[in-house]
Amino acid sequence: MAKCRGNKKKGKIKVAINGYGTIGKRVADAVKLQKDMSVVGVTKTKPDFEAKMAVKKGYKLYAAIPERVELFEKAGIKIEGTIDDLLEKADIVIDCSPGKIGAENKEKYVKAGVKAIFQGGEKANVAETSFNALSCYDKALGKNYVRVVSCNTTGLTRVLYLIKENFGIKKVRATMIRRVVDPKEDKKGLVNGIMPNPITLPSHHGPDVQTVLDVDITTVAFKVPSTLMHIHSINVVPEKIPEREDLLEVLRSEPRILLLKENDGFTSTAKIIEWAREVRMRYDLYENCVWEDSVSIVDGEIYLTQAIHQEAIVVPENIDAIRAMFELKSREESMKLTNNSLGIGKIKI
Amino acid sequence: MAKCRGNKKKGKIKVAINGYGTIGKRVADAVKLQKDMSVVGVTKTKPDFEAKMAVKKGYKLYAAIPERVELFEKAGIKIEGTIDDLLEKADIVIDCSPGKIGAENKEKYVKAGVKAIFQGGEKANVAETSFNALSCYDKALGKNYVRVVSCNTTGLTRVLYLIKENFGIKKVRATMIRRVVDPKEDKKGLVNGIMPNPITLPSHHGPDVQTVLDVDITTVAFKVPSTLMHIHSINVVPEKIPEREDLLEVLRSEPRILLLKENDGFTSTAKIIEWAREVRMRYDLYENCVWEDSVSIVDGEIYLTQAIHQEAIVVPENIDAIRAMFELKSREESMKLTNNSLGIGKIKI
Amino acid sequence: MAKCRGNKKKGKIKVAINGYGTIGKRVADAVKLQKDMSVVGVTKTKPDFEAKMAVKKGYKLYAAIPERVELFEKAGIKIEGTIDDLLEKADIVIDCSPGKIGAENKEKYVKAGVKAIFQGGEKANVAETSFNALSCYDKALGKNYVRVVSCNTTGLTRVLYLIKENFGIKKVRATMIRRVVDPKEDKKGLVNGIMPNPITLPSHHGPDVQTVLDVDITTVAFKVPSTLMHIHSINVVPEKIPEREDLLEVLRSEPRILLLKENDGFTSTAKIIEWAREVRMRYDLYENCVWEDSVSIVDGEIYLTQAIHQEAIVVPENIDAIRAMFELKSREESMKLTNNSLGIGKIKI
Amino acid sequence: MAKCRGNKKKGKIKVAINGYGTIGKRVADAVKLQKDMSVVGVTKTKPDFEAKMAVKKGYKLYAAIPERVELFEKAGIKIEGTIDDLLEKADIVIDCSPGKIGAENKEKYVKAGVKAIFQGGEKANVAETSFNALSCYDKALGKNYVRVVSCNTTGLTRVLYLIKENFGIKKVRATMIRRVVDPKEDKKGLVNGIMPNPITLPSHHGPDVQTVLDVDITTVAFKVPSTLMHIHSINVVPEKIPEREDLLEVLRSEPRILLLKENDGFTSTAKIIEWAREVRMRYDLYENCVWEDSVSIVDGEIYLTQAIHQEAIVVPENIDAIRAMFELKSREESMKLTNNSLGIGKIKI
Repeated sequence: MAKCRGNKKKGKIKVAINGYGTIGKRVADAVKLQKDMSVVGVTKTKPDFEAKMAVKKGYKLYAAIPERVELFEKAGIKIEGTIDDLLEKADIVIDCSPGKIGAENKEKYVKAGVKAIFQGGEKANVAETSFNALSCYDKALGKNYVRVVSCNTTGLTRVLYLIKENFGIKKVRATMIRRVVDPKEDKKGLVNGIMPNPITLPSHHGPDVQTVLDVDITTVAFKVPSTLMHIHSINVVPEKIPEREDLLEVLRSEPRILLLKENDGFTSTAKIIEWAREVRMRYDLYENCVWEDSVSIVDGEIYLTQAIHQEAIVVPENIDAIRAMFELKSREESMKLTNNSLGIGKIKI
Repeated sequence: MAKCRGNKKKGKIKVAINGYGTIGKRVADAVKLQKDMSVVGVTKTKPDFEAKMAVKKGYKLYAAIPERVELFEKAGIKIEGTIDDLLEKADIVIDCSPGKIGAENKEKYVKAGVKAIFQGGEKANVAETSFNALSCYDKALGKNYVRVVSCNTTGLTRVLYLIKENFGIKKVRATMIRRVVDPKEDKKGLVNGIMPNPITLPSHHGPDVQTVLDVDITTVAFKVPSTLMHIHSINVVPEKIPEREDLLEVLRSEPRILLLKENDGFTSTAKIIEWAREVRMRYDLYENCVWEDSVSIVDGEIYLTQAIHQEAIVVPENIDAIRAMFELKSREESMKLTNNSLGIGKIKI
Repeated sequence: MAKCRGNKKKGKIKVAINGYGTIGKRVADAVKLQKDMSVVGVTKTKPDFEAKMAVKKGYKLYAAIPERVELFEKAGIKIEGTIDDLLEKADIVIDCSPGKIGAENKEKYVKAGVKAIFQGGEKANVAETSFNALSCYDKALGKNYVRVVSCNTTGLTRVLYLIKENFGIKKVRATMIRRVVDPKEDKKGLVNGIMPNPITLPSHHGPDVQTVLDVDITTVAFKVPSTLMHIHSINVVPEKIPEREDLLEVLRSEPRILLLKENDGFTSTAKIIEWAREVRMRYDLYENCVWEDSVSIVDGEIYLTQAIHQEAIVVPENIDAIRAMFELKSREESMKLTNNSLGIGKIKI
Repeated sequence: MAKCRGNKKKGKIKVAINGYGTIGKRVADAVKLQKDMSVVGVTKTKPDFEAKMAVKKGYKLYAAIPERVELFEKAGIKIEGTIDDLLEKADIVIDCSPGKIGAENKEKYVKAGVKAIFQGGEKANVAETSFNALSCYDKALGKNYVRVVSCNTTGLTRVLYLIKENFGIKKVRATMIRRVVDPKEDKKGLVNGIMPNPITLPSHHGPDVQTVLDVDITTVAFKVPSTLMHIHSINVVPEKIPEREDLLEVLRSEPRILLLKENDGFTSTAKIIEWAREVRMRYDLYENCVWEDSVSIVDGEIYLTQAIHQEAIVVPENIDAIRAMFELKSREESMKLTNNSLGIGKIKI
């Protein structure tokens, strides 16, 4: 593999975002909030309102598909060049293109000699290692190609890591009820129905968790006609049966987990998002939303239900992955910086 | 408790349906198809298209709420009297009123000296015993008050009974993904979101299964914005680990279970219902729809996914319950008669 | 244009259905019910449950895509040959393939020398004339290539034809609220939102109506997250202002129009379909469902709201088009035969 | 009617918000941004996350239902007293309770001698006059009881006022496609279907517009399973036919109207909200969102489509109504202050 420039750099890490869409725009804003990195540019495939928003926010815009530069010019959007131009200026590129496209882009990144972060829509072998800040930050230290696992895997891993560290885990069984598309989607979907996804069990989420956490896990997943958040129904057989209050305390003490109470009116993902609309722009919830009331010990097994905001949850992980890849900070230091800058751990309900 | 008339009667059992709605209209049609019973009348609370359909189909219509007789007359619908008049003519009443109303109706039934079947929306203690044909037909023999368990409990019980009988069961964990309302509903619902229901685990479905099957079971349930079918994601720890093919054979041999294949295009509940629309009026699926591809043995545990048509699945159970309560037939005989009359077990895909 | 065989034939008209999907399967069943025509075969592109249903119903099955014959054989489905084999046996082919594919198929039909009916997803110029039974049956007499207009256009045309014939029409304005996908769809959709379709006004529906009815009409259309029926909100400026009762009488006297009353509980398309599930297999509604209460005269203009079952409404029109193309019957005779065979005009609520 | 205190006061107007829910919380935040008014307190009926958010934001919280003070205390939420205590401190109360409850509350307000603003869920006769800032600010000058018209009426009135002022209006026909419930709702709804609302035409929206604008208008309305925004499909017969560009200029020059282009990717309400999530907290859109591409002149009639964010659009109107009722500012001055404080007119896409 080609050598990448930029290890242990002085000055800010120059970050390129390839794909200023659902994930890309959030990661860009998060990078901007860090003191040790800066956004050198973002790309778009077409000149829509997201492209205009990028420019308005002060990001330098590049065409993700070189042939389309003209399209942007016709739309009156200032464009700085193509993805190739952008890669020359960057120390690292965060690939936020749709699933499977990241792998196609990789050659470009290797050629340009930039480190790259891929998202969970790519297969694990696109990168040297898969990443979750809590569970395996150190494995990404100094790496050139890292994959931040998907929203569902990130959500599962955080909570399972905490349980494993504190009580040990013999077995995990989880059922994922997935929002079928993101809120902005208006062509794809499932309008009335429930879709096993996949039908042949188990789902890929279990093995995906195992790329970042050593745990015996079997998962099942479904798609339902909702856009707001995923739901995880989790069953864990712990090695040591915890007191419910101790388990709650473990969850409560991790800033990337929020405990929500039914008594506060959190009866569904609709209510969680209603609340989040007052808390952060774009109602971004970087935290796992665990229903405190759902945390139960039944016959020595742990049960809990959490909601995962699929658009936002991987954002802090991308930031931490950057720091790990440049060996800028330790896990604790990086997570603290990320948390503070994004307001994680400061929310009181 | 008052004595009920009609045990071991000669002639057809005279069945009254209190509440000609989603369940009631299906049970009425099913009773009509039996040789050993007849519908003596059905009730409605208001003179809508369902009331008119009842009359058109030849059912004698009674006012469920005595004060509303006039309403029906004004609407030009022929009415034979009130629920009280109907009860006098019946040997048994199938209470198909909305949840909790059945319990309120019970006094009326006791006073009238008629046997009564309640639906799963009522608490177990409304009746002498709860009922599932496969798992506990005999417990209803000669009883006066029986509760047919809910659609979800019926669906769970059938498949768990078969596994238990053949392989034994140590533990069951099931996640229910429930259609939020029936297709005809247009005022209630959940439009965009996912709702843990209940939030505090486990859900009532586990204990409800235990009213009809002795099994260690923990359940979790969610509501999603769909109207067609419920989905059950089931994990069973068997006493004896089956070969997958043996397990499939057990399921395949029970007429009240249908095995569906992804290869046939059954990718979601939307596709199952599309198919059912060609098979039965009202696309009624009395059978559990188990995805054959989902039936798996992972680490010695059984996983499977099934879809349950909430409007239809309890219909055959109501018919069998009637026969048990009048000690007309054995379990095998009754289920065979019910299956044959409703076309259960005759479907080839 | 090549000459087609089969004009004014003796014996039954031999009908091929190219595309046994949502429209094709309904048209096949409708053809089967006619005494003067028969289904010589149907095609499918893949061996799914619809293909199996075709065989089970006794239709001879052909591969719509010749290269895929093997796929069907692997799935154990008996296949009689390819679309080319089928066309040799037919007097006419009903093209029920997805929009735009019909035009691509046309060459095949011309080459085979068979008449062809296209659906409303094709452009008007695919055929010699566009067709609606009420408004322009005679224009299809003896034609070789006819396009049955779309579900929305058929629904609009029927009601506007009746108003025009009886009261004259100066101007029509209509807003269409379209179900975004059919019930069986589970990949496409709009999950939460409303989509102007098109955004640039007016919509194509107005000009499409004008292919079958000479009327001044401007239309606007939207897609919404529902699967059951389209809704039309119609405003007509008549030449002669009718009494409301006279207008109702005109609508009531046409069998292909159903008048529904709010008092009967028809509060939404959900309720209409609930009722239809008891009336016809697949809840097929061949009739426009006009809310009687919505029919109003306001300031000399007519307002009315109708629901259109997009899966079924063009079925009778396809049957009538066949008769017109072979000059078998007059408009009145054909519509009567079609109506009687499909149960149109016999429904009492 | 009792005399209200506080006309032409010195110092800030003391505003109470009765009902800190969907509308109330937005109005509170908007009042807070004004220099000439302040929030003296808000009420809630139950101690949920909205109540806690109110306290967190620094609003003094009162129990809307006096008997429930204890409930709040049990939930650990600081409560300042009851609605009665709050009314004593206020110059004006903005009633943001659910529809029809406002009228019930009125007596309390009269007794307390405070001016009151009601929302559009109340009948017009609850107040001395109905209110829209553009169309009839002056009618509210010095009034004690004013009703701000509903979201749909506000949206219609703004655009019609501008057309009327500039080109005259002979006739308006509008079809409203309404989101069935707000995003936070998880019990009510319409899951799959379309509901004429009302079925008997025309809808109440036309007469409601006439309470604030003298115009000949007939409206029709439907509910659809979406939560984000309403859609209005509007047809206007102008007295003087405008050039399309002139009409666009009129709309463009009003800050409370936003023109959106399809080319920017605004293909549905889902996309508009996606954009709004980056623009304002809670994605509040105080402006009518008119699709520029939809603005058309067809046969001398104007057609246009707009989307209305039902949660936010009446917020600026409530602020202006307060100023009018206290005769603080002229229409132009008040709208300018409101617009500037809320960021209306400053958005560039």
